[in-house]
Amino acid sequence: MTFSLSRRLAAEFLATAFLVAAVVGSGIMGERLAGSNASLCLLENTIATGAALVALILAFGPVSGAHLNPAVTLAGGLSGAMPWQVVPQYILAQVLGGIAGVAVTHMMFGLPAFAVSQHVRSGPAQFLSECVATFGLLAVIEVCSRVRPEGVPYAVGAYITAAYWFSASTAFANPAVTIARSLSNTFAGIRPPDVPMFVTAQLLGGLAAALFIRWLAPGPKRRGGSPSPLATLHGMGEVEAP
Amino acid sequence: MTFSLSRRLAAEFLATAFLVAAVVGSGIMGERLAGSNASLCLLENTIATGAALVALILAFGPVSGAHLNPAVTLAGGLSGAMPWQVVPQYILAQVLGGIAGVAVTHMMFGLPAFAVSQHVRSGPAQFLSECVATFGLLAVIEVCSRVRPEGVPYAVGAYITAAYWFSASTAFANPAVTIARSLSNTFAGIRPPDVPMFVTAQLLGGLAAALFIRWLAPGPKRRGGSPSPLATLHGMGEVEAP
Amino acid sequence: MTFSLSRRLAAEFLATAFLVAAVVGSGIMGERLAGSNASLCLLENTIATGAALVALILAFGPVSGAHLNPAVTLAGGLSGAMPWQVVPQYILAQVLGGIAGVAVTHMMFGLPAFAVSQHVRSGPAQFLSECVATFGLLAVIEVCSRVRPEGVPYAVGAYITAAYWFSASTAFANPAVTIARSLSNTFAGIRPPDVPMFVTAQLLGGLAAALFIRWLAPGPKRRGGSPSPLATLHGMGEVEAP
Amino acid sequence: MTFSLSRRLAAEFLATAFLVAAVVGSGIMGERLAGSNASLCLLENTIATGAALVALILAFGPVSGAHLNPAVTLAGGLSGAMPWQVVPQYILAQVLGGIAGVAVTHMMFGLPAFAVSQHVRSGPAQFLSECVATFGLLAVIEVCSRVRPEGVPYAVGAYITAAYWFSASTAFANPAVTIARSLSNTFAGIRPPDVPMFVTAQLLGGLAAALFIRWLAPGPKRRGGSPSPLATLHGMGEVEAP
Repeated sequence: MTFSLSRRLAAEFLATAFLVAAVVGSGIMGERLAGSNASLCLLENTIATGAALVALILAFGPVSGAHLNPAVTLAGGLSGAMPWQVVPQYILAQVLGGIAGVAVTHMMFGLPAFAVSQHVRSGPAQFLSECVATFGLLAVIEVCSRVRPEGVPYAVGAYITAAYWFSASTAFANPAVTIARSLSNTFAGIRPPDVPMFVTAQLLGGLAAALFIRWLAPGPKRRGGSPSPLATLHGMGEVEAP
Repeated sequence: MTFSLSRRLAAEFLATAFLVAAVVGSGIMGERLAGSNASLCLLENTIATGAALVALILAFGPVSGAHLNPAVTLAGGLSGAMPWQVVPQYILAQVLGGIAGVAVTHMMFGLPAFAVSQHVRSGPAQFLSECVATFGLLAVIEVCSRVRPEGVPYAVGAYITAAYWFSASTAFANPAVTIARSLSNTFAGIRPPDVPMFVTAQLLGGLAAALFIRWLAPGPKRRGGSPSPLATLHGMGEVEAP
Repeated sequence: MTFSLSRRLAAEFLATAFLVAAVVGSGIMGERLAGSNASLCLLENTIATGAALVALILAFGPVSGAHLNPAVTLAGGLSGAMPWQVVPQYILAQVLGGIAGVAVTHMMFGLPAFAVSQHVRSGPAQFLSECVATFGLLAVIEVCSRVRPEGVPYAVGAYITAAYWFSASTAFANPAVTIARSLSNTFAGIRPPDVPMFVTAQLLGGLAAALFIRWLAPGPKRRGGSPSPLATLHGMGEVEAP
Repeated sequence: MTFSLSRRLAAEFLATAFLVAAVVGSGIMGERLAGSNASLCLLENTIATGAALVALILAFGPVSGAHLNPAVTLAGGLSGAMPWQVVPQYILAQVLGGIAGVAVTHMMFGLPAFAVSQHVRSGPAQFLSECVATFGLLAVIEVCSRVRPEGVPYAVGAYITAAYWFSASTAFANPAVTIARSLSNTFAGIRPPDVPMFVTAQLLGGLAAALFIRWLAPGPKRRGGSPSPLATLHGMGEVEAP
């Protein structure tokens, strides 16, 4: 099954919007409920985010690859699995989808569509956390999509579930989601001045993972030729005739 | 494997009853246990509901499609996967199953079979929440059942787990379950006057999803002819000779 | 792959022991930890039990069927999937395994091997809860093992996760585990005088499910002849030459 | 797909580092968050660890077997699935990976790279707990990798999720992780003098499991000849030409 580029971009837009809804909305719900403390709130945030990733990648993975994350799309470009001319369009769809997700989520909770976050997230520990969390995310995605592609939805959901707790930054690990979260002054928000550092750390971690994977598992991804069976199966090697 | 219509209706009745039991019963148990607050109670409600969906769709999906939800059945009619004459029967089985589920659950907790809910759930934020939650549910189900049908039980359980937290209404997203919940004056209840607004929002969200999917993934579902292999595999394209 | 009867009985013994360890041990751990209240304790109990079922059935399902439950074994006898002469041996292995599991768990927590439970669990609501919970468990297992056998481990773990919360009795749903739990005076215990009522309710619920399934899905299980491929795959139709 | 020994060792190093990050980091995060008590903290620790195991074994299982645990590697040597000359190299990669994981995690939380743990964990109940927890872990892994290899990632994640709660020691069950945890003076730490007893108990439990499995399921693992299809599929029988 192949999907046209406009359909794949729509899938990236929609699924990123729902991913951001899960991240931001579960934080709002957690904060509102009597009896939530920061610990329980992060647990609820984690469960909603991990579950959303499983659902969205199961459904949209075979359509667009369900990257939902510019770091994943860039790694696809670096590995040769994504043609470079599609990369900016994917990233734009993800960023716009994330922003739309914030607006819809705020309206679902009766809030203004956007509100600039005041949540400070800065310092070297946060920087390192985002590097490491994104490195691990990309390593899991890239290796799993080569060796066990049908496990990717569960691997990504499970990885983020763990990473919310093992990184001091709660593992944003996604530039599009980071930008969207700067527009929500709620539990999951991030102050706009802190966004560039987060995105830089994510791109560095992602780049390191891409280089590591190029050595570890160079095999099954397409390198300029036709998509490999694995890449095709996972929707990550589909190219339309230009 | 094909199942007669009466068996499929029995499966819809029974599985919807157990789904409603999970929704309503876990709310009662949560409220009763010393130390539950609203936040922990919703978390317990979420885990029970998501898990019930996984179990019920794994078992009954290949029997009846395990719709358990009139919005899913109507989307099946719109897409051509369900013959229209079966749609009202499915919906009736789901609604009656949900009502039976409330009664049995109440009796398991030593309560009268039915008690009209006093739980107010109204306003535009709730309306939008049900639209969005049902749109996402239908989008995930319809896309996943076309591109990765064996993942549907996990996708639905995971989606609802997330949606309980990202929508202000806790994602009823199901007209049969909404009607049943109006008959329980407990944590999961909804005041009968609020039911029509919820059902309207669910049907609008579901219709929007059906139109979106018709554009996104028109492929593998049956359009008047014989069931596609995918639809057959997932039990969603089975038709008995009239 | 076929396993000799002694290997299958060892698998039932061992896996039932670990299942009981998960049920009883997680209750002890929850009670001991500062800050656990009854609600959080039941959530922890639920997560440990559901996870144990997934792990044990994934591993031991293809060996012995991973019944771990006399109600499941009896349903196998009724459906023709289990030869009747093996049924008592399976049940004995399960009951002894459960008792061994209590002893080992108590010793892991520095308690005497056995302590008669004082936990009162009686009354018609508890009786109905056990009937319904066991009916649902058997329905899920029997249908799923016919139509989607590879999903059984997840279906059973997910079902019990839900049933702990939707039944007033926290879904024992297993005579061998019920007997074992009467020997632990901790969170998960049950007073010995309440055991017969629980077991009766479980057997009634299981019998009702077996009759329901005989009508709903008579197909793929063996009826006196050779094992069906599905039954064989799931380890539920293996018979040794006498 | 075969991977060179250096790639397999890198996979063991990296995945063990992330496993330890999940164990240690989630404990630090839990302790830091206002409102976490010991019970909620262990629940968060459990969810992060179980999820990390699922993600890491899904991705790295087909690369190196994703043992992440000297007890698993030794059992592979005993069963003939691992050539003995590779065993020490695997164990070294795991131990070094675990230590690196502690250092990176501490730095992500702004702590010194290492801090000797003061957390006392001693006594016969802890010893028995580690024996039993490791016995069960090895039994699940060894049986599942023979009879249902594609289920191993979920079985291991689920087993450890349960074992954190049914053993009094919270189921370290892994010598490399135990050593690493002695270097973290946080929630998940263990005092260095208690490490030898934990490792001894783990090796005894693992040895008992290996002997039990040799009787229960001698079949599909390689015994000196070429790898069986199952072992190959799971990456546990890959041997490079010396």
